Amino acid sequence: MQKSFLLVAALLLTAPVQAEDAKPVPSPGEIAAAAPKADWTAIAPADLLVMDLTPDAKGRARRVVIQLMPAPFSQGWIGNIRKLAAAQWWDGLSINRVQDNYVVQWGDADAEDKAKARALPPGLVAVPESEYVINGEQTPQLVREQLKFLSRFIRAEMSPDHIDRGSPWNKELPDRKVDDNFIGGWPFSLETRGPMQPGTFAPVHCYGMVGVGRDLSPNTGTGAELYTVIGHAPRHLDRNIALVGRVIEGIEHLSSLPRGTGALGFYETAEERTRIASVRIGTAVAGLPSYEYLSTESASFAAYADARANRRDPFFIRPAGGADICNIPVPVRRVK
Amino acid sequence: MQKSFLLVAALLLTAPVQAEDAKPVPSPGEIAAAAPKADWTAIAPADLLVMDLTPDAKGRARRVVIQLMPAPFSQGWIGNIRKLAAAQWWDGLSINRVQDNYVVQWGDADAEDKAKARALPPGLVAVPESEYVINGEQTPQLVREQLKFLSRFIRAEMSPDHIDRGSPWNKELPDRKVDDNFIGGWPFSLETRGPMQPGTFAPVHCYGMVGVGRDLSPNTGTGAELYTVIGHAPRHLDRNIALVGRVIEGIEHLSSLPRGTGALGFYETAEERTRIASVRIGTAVAGLPSYEYLSTESASFAAYADARANRRDPFFIRPAGGADICNIPVPVRRVK
Repeated sequence: MQKSFLLVAALLLTAPVQAEDAKPVPSPGEIAAAAPKADWTAIAPADLLVMDLTPDAKGRARRVVIQLMPAPFSQGWIGNIRKLAAAQWWDGLSINRVQDNYVVQWGDADAEDKAKARALPPGLVAVPESEYVINGEQTPQLVREQLKFLSRFIRAEMSPDHIDRGSPWNKELPDRKVDDNFIGGWPFSLETRGPMQPGTFAPVHCYGMVGVGRDLSPNTGTGAELYTVIGHAPRHLDRNIALVGRVIEGIEHLSSLPRGTGALGFYETAEERTRIASVRIGTAVAGLPSYEYLSTESASFAAYADARANRRDPFFIRPAGGADICNIPVPVRRVK
Repeated sequence: MQKSFLLVAALLLTAPVQAEDAKPVPSPGEIAAAAPKADWTAIAPADLLVMDLTPDAKGRARRVVIQLMPAPFSQGWIGNIRKLAAAQWWDGLSINRVQDNYVVQWGDADAEDKAKARALPPGLVAVPESEYVINGEQTPQLVREQLKFLSRFIRAEMSPDHIDRGSPWNKELPDRKVDDNFIGGWPFSLETRGPMQPGTFAPVHCYGMVGVGRDLSPNTGTGAELYTVIGHAPRHLDRNIALVGRVIEGIEHLSSLPRGTGALGFYETAEERTRIASVRIGTAVAGLPSYEYLSTESASFAAYADARANRRDPFFIRPAGGADICNIPVPVRRVK
């Protein structure tokens, strides 16, 4: 019966246990599955980025589907990514870096060698660092309502209490208070006190989020070099680098790749790199399924988040009383 | 130059930048590397569990080294694990489950089939659920000092403010407040308010931590079925299941395995399973290197934790002002 470790814990396959008031306790998965159609939001095919790797050693297809952040969250890099995909710029390039518990990164392995580097398509813009965060004044009502709506479930936060003022390195650090929350289907950290515009927010580096590789500041990256998170959320990257989307299907084709043995997980030889067959915007991919996500503004999502924060599936004996925002993945599914 | 994303960010290879007072700002890696020998604590070979998988497709060895929790933290399961290793019980068994962003699990794939299951060695004890947590009264001074020592850097916490009392499911939930901290080299969550003995603490499910698979309560598992975390810390498992150690070397041999396609990431066929050649306690392994970890009670660790919480390497433009305990991995190295 050992197999049952998390047969019950991770999904919710079995009959629900009874609460004291005799109502069944639904699991997170059951809550999402039972959500009314109106609580699901369609993802526009124009907001999908579809990366096909070359087939694996057994000839099996490897497709990775990425959802790009839609308006009002999409920043300048996403326009660049659309241009790169339209130019079929990534075709024939490769996965160049797999660092355990950190990131998988892809793009032009020869980008550092001017003689070999693939030329970028025309029209890419240089996006300023200010776009690492989003000005909440654009959507103040939305932010206020979300803070009220979900904060009670989410335990991750940063506060000035966590800065050691006795350290010589910390004298210059600003007082900040940050709360994590979902807005419009995405995980964000919201600055509620600090030097940045109060109410600004930035996407959170949860598992599967996709970001833009860059050089040292003031370089912000073009979008040609992308990475996805395959480990514990590296929150130190928040507000320091651009996040542009998340993997919604096929992340296992990236996360299970052999780790690179060079510095920072870069592959040391060309033979180790997995080739990218093509990268296209969803509207250019024939037969692509439609996808939808559980609206984070819905009552169903609130119930789902609560169930993730306080697990009462039969496996659990002590609910946690809170969850990190990255332990509340937004449900995404194919439209039936 | 794209390769430099995190060439600077993740390690600390380059010349440190200058703070306002002209002192160089050391990186987390530099701080650990510069720690005096006295700040490192030797890991006893008797506290190592060495798992050799069969060689990979290219004939390369795959060794996973696990550090078992030493006294005073080791609970009854660790005695069972020692007996299982001494009996060479795992030899010839397999990795049976790889669930993306969650766990890798190994043991007897036939455990559910009484006709085929491998018999357990004699003398295993049934450990009670009370041992999922450690009674802080055993080491009260240690706990008090650690709370003061490191709390300022660590932002993860749970509090009763995160429980929605309006939910019908939450009426019975207790008020709890939990703080995360390191004690004796390990990540723990400490209950500072709640129904459990104040001052009790439980290990945290960070990436690479090793735990004991179990059936439904009151079953607590024997230690024969083990798992390690390969994703964002599943904190909902804390206090609900036994943690017994952590992978200190070779986790890439587990985390890069193909994901299982059955429910919960179990492999569906025997052919997909990776075979375990042997599992031994470190004292029984010829030529095993010696390992040591950076003492979490040392000034070096405090400086390291602060640097992880407030990155000032040249790559970063905005330090976070705090870090999740699982983003402060305890440095472990081979003794030179």
